[in-house]
Amino acid sequence: MEHIKLSVDKTLSFVSREEIFKFKEESKKHLTALHEGTGKGNDYTGWVELPSQITAEELKDIQETANNLKERVEVLVVIGIGGSYLGAKAVNDALANNFDMLQADNENPLVLYAGQNISEDYLYELMEILENIEFGICVISKSGTTTEPALAFRLLKELLEEGVGKEEAKERIVAITDESKGALRTLADQEGYKTFIIPDNVGGRYSVLTPVGLLPIAVAGHDITKLVEGAKSMQKYTSETNFEENPALLYAATRNALYAKGKEIEILANYNPKLHNIAEWWKQLYGESEGKELKGIFPASVDLTSDLHSMGQYIQEGQRNIFETVISVAKTKYKVVIPEDKDNLDKLNFLAGKRVDEVNKMAELGTQLAHVDGGVPNLRIELPELNEFYIGELLYFFEIACGVSGYILDVNPFDQPGVEAYKSNMFALLEKPGFEEETKKIKERL
Amino acid sequence: MEHIKLSVDKTLSFVSREEIFKFKEESKKHLTALHEGTGKGNDYTGWVELPSQITAEELKDIQETANNLKERVEVLVVIGIGGSYLGAKAVNDALANNFDMLQADNENPLVLYAGQNISEDYLYELMEILENIEFGICVISKSGTTTEPALAFRLLKELLEEGVGKEEAKERIVAITDESKGALRTLADQEGYKTFIIPDNVGGRYSVLTPVGLLPIAVAGHDITKLVEGAKSMQKYTSETNFEENPALLYAATRNALYAKGKEIEILANYNPKLHNIAEWWKQLYGESEGKELKGIFPASVDLTSDLHSMGQYIQEGQRNIFETVISVAKTKYKVVIPEDKDNLDKLNFLAGKRVDEVNKMAELGTQLAHVDGGVPNLRIELPELNEFYIGELLYFFEIACGVSGYILDVNPFDQPGVEAYKSNMFALLEKPGFEEETKKIKERL
Repeated sequence: MEHIKLSVDKTLSFVSREEIFKFKEESKKHLTALHEGTGKGNDYTGWVELPSQITAEELKDIQETANNLKERVEVLVVIGIGGSYLGAKAVNDALANNFDMLQADNENPLVLYAGQNISEDYLYELMEILENIEFGICVISKSGTTTEPALAFRLLKELLEEGVGKEEAKERIVAITDESKGALRTLADQEGYKTFIIPDNVGGRYSVLTPVGLLPIAVAGHDITKLVEGAKSMQKYTSETNFEENPALLYAATRNALYAKGKEIEILANYNPKLHNIAEWWKQLYGESEGKELKGIFPASVDLTSDLHSMGQYIQEGQRNIFETVISVAKTKYKVVIPEDKDNLDKLNFLAGKRVDEVNKMAELGTQLAHVDGGVPNLRIELPELNEFYIGELLYFFEIACGVSGYILDVNPFDQPGVEAYKSNMFALLEKPGFEEETKKIKERL
Repeated sequence: MEHIKLSVDKTLSFVSREEIFKFKEESKKHLTALHEGTGKGNDYTGWVELPSQITAEELKDIQETANNLKERVEVLVVIGIGGSYLGAKAVNDALANNFDMLQADNENPLVLYAGQNISEDYLYELMEILENIEFGICVISKSGTTTEPALAFRLLKELLEEGVGKEEAKERIVAITDESKGALRTLADQEGYKTFIIPDNVGGRYSVLTPVGLLPIAVAGHDITKLVEGAKSMQKYTSETNFEENPALLYAATRNALYAKGKEIEILANYNPKLHNIAEWWKQLYGESEGKELKGIFPASVDLTSDLHSMGQYIQEGQRNIFETVISVAKTKYKVVIPEDKDNLDKLNFLAGKRVDEVNKMAELGTQLAHVDGGVPNLRIELPELNEFYIGELLYFFEIACGVSGYILDVNPFDQPGVEAYKSNMFALLEKPGFEEETKKIKERL
């Protein structure tokens, strides 16, 4: 069985092997604590054993619901924010055609997203599109009262019911929510929507392998069984493998060793634009898990080689407080050979007959050498190819490594207390019932 | 005349007015040096007076060329990397419908991009789309030999000529390149392509108001005259206004004052997803201008409120080495009112009758207060609305402020020596003729 691979060699001129191995025993202890549910935030470690616990029946239920939607709609709008859309978007974009919006796909609905912002023009333009299209809604919210998704759902539910009637709308709305409580659960039970449960012990940013991620991924036409198999494979591999070979433990240890040396920014880089939103998912995972108690590595991302002509100058010669983690995909899906040109004005005939990907790979290797020479430690993750299985491995790898890394940093990687601050100010400013005291206080400040 | 506005009030609990005003005389001197062309890198300050120098004839020539393309093609592929695509993409996305890819627009071609990466699958999937569509090419390269765009142009030119014949292809290809030298100039003259000139004294990241940006923006159907008018308005305003009221000088001074206090990361935030690629353009502008000599503020970006459920936790409670610059748009284009719901399970009836944008604005204000309370200095740029004129103001504001800011940092904000490092390694690895020595050396390293 081939796995995704992590290499940390190109950090060793910045941190010693000893500085990384210093975390060996500690990281093993943290991994055990995650599996046994004995560490900080252990109410929210249900995702650790999740891949091996998902049953064939659960996957079948999700797939059948996806199939029902596929028969009824051309567009599925996924309503959710944060962990309730980043995972699905990351996987769907990694597996989709780069130009899927321009392609008629009669089998799989196009997945669009709403409730991830409060832009009036975004909602207007979305509703304008939906007026002329058969659409359905997958609404994802534990409580059903989070402002962004609740607002979008109120608007789109009304639009859908007006368009196709209340009965057909019920067939096209799926709610992913709490098992027993909250506004969305109440509404779903009342209306008779198909529902799936967000487990109590899995937080948003670790929820991609629950129905939160799996349903929208299945609707887009990707193989959720293989995705879960990949995650399960990485669950087994990381739980059984020695520190020296264990990608999760090594990633957690190396980034903490680098952080201890003043490398405060981690840049996740890819050489394939389809991975752009994997980085967005990763930013939430690491930023929200570690960015607390006035510490944490700042997560950033670049798409290469594009951004070698943008952030490349900074990475090469700017402040030396950064390190880089590259995700590389060994094999392309398609084949494009560089043609010969008789005039050769562009002087590219030395590449004629080569695959485009050979040039991309030499750009990647050349960049790695250049960045290391320039003072930027470099980690590298290699996927054999971009498919459901290896994306499943990658997601679980990042999740379990994040839990270990957060424990090394000595924070609770499963809470997000800082996310409440803007919400309570917003409610106070909007004079939400129950926030009378806060409203009074905030108005005095303005 | 209303202008875009900058407010730095919410940085004053982190830096004193004196610490900002310390840069007053210096920043005025740097602005003068930019206008007089007497500072570092003055070979590349042609963009400073550019808005007021563009003639009606030049704009007419660009518009007529755009009109010719509009009549012939459904898709225009812009081939370029770095400054040769980020400006056009930023403006086009800011002004487009959020779902323009899903809308038939019989008047304006869809603009797609190529040559900004070396992804084999991206090129394959792009060519697959183009096979069934009437397309044209706008190829942008000073030299014509930069690997990424040259490769894409070689492939797409062949595809176009095979599809519509060499004669029609010539009518659909526009080259934006050097006035007299280089591979693309030679080819364009030989084939008889319509061409536009990249001025010698304007670098890529400052080129959005040359034909590099203006042609793709005109093809997408936006008003380039108003865009240039906005830039010209900001050129005049920043060159005539006292430090106290001058957004460019204040922005340059404030960010340098914050940097001196250990704020090493600037996060550009928006509350409108259409501004996402303005941030990508800004990252190149500031990262490539200032990230050198082992210094420079690290530019990052977030889309809000989306990323309040992702990077929000870090911004609120992570390491306190960040500051935030928010771009806010005062007026929406469309109107969406929040409906009443008789059951009110989601408890949003307190918002019924309000505009969605009112909620967005209270989220913005609530977030500003929360972030400042959490230790994040906050700058705010307000656009009266999202149109060509104010985007023109915004672009010029960021450019001129960047020149001043780079001079305060005491670097040359107009070179990018670090961008060569990966290229020469890549050529060595690919055994490009002329790189025999480098090839030998790099192979010994591997």
